[in-house]
Amino acid sequence: MIVILKENPAEEQLNDLTQWLKSLNIEIYKSEGLHKVILGLIGDTTVVDVDLIKALDIVEDVRLIQEPYKSANRKFHPMDSIIQVGDVKIGDGSLQIIAGPCSIETEAQICSIAQSVKESGARILRGGAFKPRTSPYSFQGLRNDGIKLLLKAKKASGLPVVTEIMDLSQLELFEDVDFIQVGARNMQNFELLKELGRSQKPILLKRGLASTFREWLMSVEYIMAGGNPNVVLCERGIRTFENYTRNTLDLSAVPVIKKLSHLPIIVDPSHATGRSELIVPMALAAVAAGADGLMIEVHNDPPHALCDGPQSLLPSTFDKLMKKIQKIRVALQD
Amino acid sequence: MIVILKENPAEEQLNDLTQWLKSLNIEIYKSEGLHKVILGLIGDTTVVDVDLIKALDIVEDVRLIQEPYKSANRKFHPMDSIIQVGDVKIGDGSLQIIAGPCSIETEAQICSIAQSVKESGARILRGGAFKPRTSPYSFQGLRNDGIKLLLKAKKASGLPVVTEIMDLSQLELFEDVDFIQVGARNMQNFELLKELGRSQKPILLKRGLASTFREWLMSVEYIMAGGNPNVVLCERGIRTFENYTRNTLDLSAVPVIKKLSHLPIIVDPSHATGRSELIVPMALAAVAAGADGLMIEVHNDPPHALCDGPQSLLPSTFDKLMKKIQKIRVALQD
Amino acid sequence: MIVILKENPAEEQLNDLTQWLKSLNIEIYKSEGLHKVILGLIGDTTVVDVDLIKALDIVEDVRLIQEPYKSANRKFHPMDSIIQVGDVKIGDGSLQIIAGPCSIETEAQICSIAQSVKESGARILRGGAFKPRTSPYSFQGLRNDGIKLLLKAKKASGLPVVTEIMDLSQLELFEDVDFIQVGARNMQNFELLKELGRSQKPILLKRGLASTFREWLMSVEYIMAGGNPNVVLCERGIRTFENYTRNTLDLSAVPVIKKLSHLPIIVDPSHATGRSELIVPMALAAVAAGADGLMIEVHNDPPHALCDGPQSLLPSTFDKLMKKIQKIRVALQD
Amino acid sequence: MIVILKENPAEEQLNDLTQWLKSLNIEIYKSEGLHKVILGLIGDTTVVDVDLIKALDIVEDVRLIQEPYKSANRKFHPMDSIIQVGDVKIGDGSLQIIAGPCSIETEAQICSIAQSVKESGARILRGGAFKPRTSPYSFQGLRNDGIKLLLKAKKASGLPVVTEIMDLSQLELFEDVDFIQVGARNMQNFELLKELGRSQKPILLKRGLASTFREWLMSVEYIMAGGNPNVVLCERGIRTFENYTRNTLDLSAVPVIKKLSHLPIIVDPSHATGRSELIVPMALAAVAAGADGLMIEVHNDPPHALCDGPQSLLPSTFDKLMKKIQKIRVALQD
Repeated sequence: MIVILKENPAEEQLNDLTQWLKSLNIEIYKSEGLHKVILGLIGDTTVVDVDLIKALDIVEDVRLIQEPYKSANRKFHPMDSIIQVGDVKIGDGSLQIIAGPCSIETEAQICSIAQSVKESGARILRGGAFKPRTSPYSFQGLRNDGIKLLLKAKKASGLPVVTEIMDLSQLELFEDVDFIQVGARNMQNFELLKELGRSQKPILLKRGLASTFREWLMSVEYIMAGGNPNVVLCERGIRTFENYTRNTLDLSAVPVIKKLSHLPIIVDPSHATGRSELIVPMALAAVAAGADGLMIEVHNDPPHALCDGPQSLLPSTFDKLMKKIQKIRVALQD
Repeated sequence: MIVILKENPAEEQLNDLTQWLKSLNIEIYKSEGLHKVILGLIGDTTVVDVDLIKALDIVEDVRLIQEPYKSANRKFHPMDSIIQVGDVKIGDGSLQIIAGPCSIETEAQICSIAQSVKESGARILRGGAFKPRTSPYSFQGLRNDGIKLLLKAKKASGLPVVTEIMDLSQLELFEDVDFIQVGARNMQNFELLKELGRSQKPILLKRGLASTFREWLMSVEYIMAGGNPNVVLCERGIRTFENYTRNTLDLSAVPVIKKLSHLPIIVDPSHATGRSELIVPMALAAVAAGADGLMIEVHNDPPHALCDGPQSLLPSTFDKLMKKIQKIRVALQD
Repeated sequence: MIVILKENPAEEQLNDLTQWLKSLNIEIYKSEGLHKVILGLIGDTTVVDVDLIKALDIVEDVRLIQEPYKSANRKFHPMDSIIQVGDVKIGDGSLQIIAGPCSIETEAQICSIAQSVKESGARILRGGAFKPRTSPYSFQGLRNDGIKLLLKAKKASGLPVVTEIMDLSQLELFEDVDFIQVGARNMQNFELLKELGRSQKPILLKRGLASTFREWLMSVEYIMAGGNPNVVLCERGIRTFENYTRNTLDLSAVPVIKKLSHLPIIVDPSHATGRSELIVPMALAAVAAGADGLMIEVHNDPPHALCDGPQSLLPSTFDKLMKKIQKIRVALQD
Repeated sequence: MIVILKENPAEEQLNDLTQWLKSLNIEIYKSEGLHKVILGLIGDTTVVDVDLIKALDIVEDVRLIQEPYKSANRKFHPMDSIIQVGDVKIGDGSLQIIAGPCSIETEAQICSIAQSVKESGARILRGGAFKPRTSPYSFQGLRNDGIKLLLKAKKASGLPVVTEIMDLSQLELFEDVDFIQVGARNMQNFELLKELGRSQKPILLKRGLASTFREWLMSVEYIMAGGNPNVVLCERGIRTFENYTRNTLDLSAVPVIKKLSHLPIIVDPSHATGRSELIVPMALAAVAAGADGLMIEVHNDPPHALCDGPQSLLPSTFDKLMKKIQKIRVALQD
């Protein structure tokens, strides 16, 4: 960490600062330039509250050298982490496919899609029970009943299941859910993250629409700092000026997160683009970029789906995609 | 609402669509062009689920003509709404100043700042008890104890108080809080908004970092649709590529929201910029743009504030700002 | 095109508008709603100046149904266009690789890299002579001398060459250059685009940092409207709030442009990311997404390159990438 | 400047680097941490090519401490610069208003608007001759003839004039133009900036749609490094995800540029918003924020203006605005 001081810093405050830092086992190197004095802080600076230093009136700015997240940082944990969801391993070099409908609608619907995506090679079933919708007048999901139907499909298909939690108060309903999704809008719902950190359930943390890689990893840190090491990240598009696509899928997230962290990262091409004709090319691209998995919306009747039909694939299209993905995997591994 | 059909739409689906729309009391006008057929939907289209229509496979796209929010829409409520917070009226043409520290630290601190900002002309006291922080290692606020201290300052100063709620589970602590703030990160925490819609407390809804005006007003709609008409909006900066300032304060929000909605809008120049030297010019600009109020961080000792010191003003600077604001108000009213 | 009128439009202006539109062979369908009157315009609306209509004071807004570009529009030209650069065909279903150094430095450098990338399978040589640099104090390229060295490398290697033009006044130097690149910063340098429209040279038009797909295709239209149909588009990243990567590579551009236009699109993963470790995964992803080609920076000595070394590959890394790309191509074609 | 080295940097390269830096009169302070070695560079680091250092393979990253622009930097030139346009001084503490139509259309039009805005208090006349338009099918301005008409209006009204240059080849037409505008799309047209640096004409440099404050000041540096110190900056909105307004006017640019640079900054509320009802509140806000001037589009017949009518004011509205602005100025100066 580099602390840039204002011109002519008050001697006393500078002493206070250096005493405090030394008490945290931080070594300090001071360099005086023509216009600025800078302090180089050496040691475990993740324990230093950057905002506190910035708040001092002798300080002009603070620049981070070491990333401020610790548990998620590959530097302190060089080996890839493998996260287990039911009997499925994510991050062990395999490519795991999560598939299912945007919204759970009926028992017949979720069970039939579960069977179908399983046959095509999906290993985890997804389905929305609690649905975050921009408008209060849009369908909000079957909620508690949706969870029950999802668990029936879990039993019938044998697939572990993932579904989104929207509020702490829903947590007890997730006891038999294998993998808890935190959506983009809740990526910085810190109270929720803290509570999930107290469990050992695998958490699928989607990237916020306006969140940097660093902020995303700091949100992971909220979960891991609580004692839960089981986190998988999911890139699902960021908000930009381009509005032909719903969001802009940032596939560089895959190699970047793999460099900065030891945790697995998967990609959701369905929500990112909001256009069904873009799902297949973006899914193939995500695989080529090195993703540990994909999350894809599949509906047996996209035009009549209760939400987000335009971003779903038919089971037959999904099946063809799975075959293409397999070929790319083989090509990449040679 | 305009529905653009794909080429050669299936007759049967088109009939289904028109029957359904007619059942919602929507009239339909069909126009056939060289390459597209379009349907003009006339009536109260706020009741139509746009996503359901987009999901039909005969539909290429949907364009909204009428805004999708209803309760917040000035078109259906031409008169300005006045929101009452304690004995303070927001939106009646006056300019109301909310001031106080970023974080509540001690009883002495919050009570002394309350007294000081009251003397300078502030009418509502702010103070953070629950603090959303990017890092789990940063100070998270005094939480329950902070609320208690804030209520002591309320009693001592006679000022109504506003503070941020971060989760539904905290709601009962807010019984004596006059004005509940929903922060930028929770603007689309729909479960929280729904619950706040069941109360009659005034809600201060900050704009999300990556939220459009329309999405912001749809979040207002979540509160109002539940029966709570007491919402004040707060512009606090959006996320852009520019990172010299923490966020980019979008002052056009003031006249835009006033045009689209009947609700009051205030501006928070402290969080938007993250730099104390920008607070005064941006506060003056917000007043000139026509804001109904300002929310400003004031700390008697910014360099030692427990969080966000760099964006706080000293009481003396705040006092000077208040005098300048008063002059601009007079100049504008002449 | 949909024209939304203000309430109670002046009869006379409405007549003027409809007369004018009819004179352009546009048919008009009028629909009256509760709050709005809308006009549906049917016909070849690309000839209508949208801004002129928006400027009328009876008009509230205009929504486009048909895309405003014509020559580049796949709707009017369903077959893929194939652009010929020297003896290389782009857009015929093959994948063409453009490679070479960021900056041309010496004859030995450019000739040796040309030979090396040719052996690895590149079909077009790139090299910068005129370099757009943010700082006037940074190296600005060898300029005229750079073009001469590039043409020597063209002769020696037999590869056609592409290099960037920065100003109209440089055009005569490009007589023997096979493929003229217009950089991201010049995507809306309309005077330059018009002049290039008067030639028949293939033009490589990079996407502007803040340009939408529509604006990009409108810039293509400037070239094609002048009579030059030989345009290839190049996605190179857009500016977003994320600044870990230099820009955010928007790979959805590949399937989107292929849907909207008949022109070929290639991807430049080097400039987009600005980090050498991201080039290989993003290049593979671009191929999987269906790009017609790639443009990759290769330098025999990246650490000593005169500009942008961090985004260059070594010839040996490039060679390995080419072999992987080949495998993915085979996998995709099966 | 801080140079962060990779782990175990090659001794020889490190020596090369330190020798080279010392030859530039840069002193080096080395600090070794647990995971990183960092070099603090002290001296006039504006002469160091950052990209060259980043390109070294022993270097992980470079962080700037001192801003990389020099001539425009307030640090090296603490007094406000005053730029003279004809007999009008910009930056001397006064507020100068530039007004006129978007496009020059006829002699009668430009002369009558000139007379009208002069009477309301404008001191410089604007008018577009060369118009950058997204579509090649939109009106492109009267070009050479437009310049001639503008000069007639200059003579008739006695006001100095400003108009936009789009290409170097147009420069000789600008001999009698008092103030040359470089538009947002050309902010990084470096060949044009270099040439303008060779003249002594005052240059009005608009901020690019996706340009940071630093990049904007680096573009100023291109002009000043050539020997022309007469630069005025103009904030005109940046591109964000919000598309209700055409762009997002970033008024924080005013105090930020005034802090970083000694040059004057004015604001153009017309282009930023693209909506006439937003011009007045944003103009007032810009004045309150401390701008040195405003550039406002005024047209005697906005509904029939050949371009950008929606963002123009009528002379009568402009006159009322001028009176309000005057009152705010008085209020601020007290």
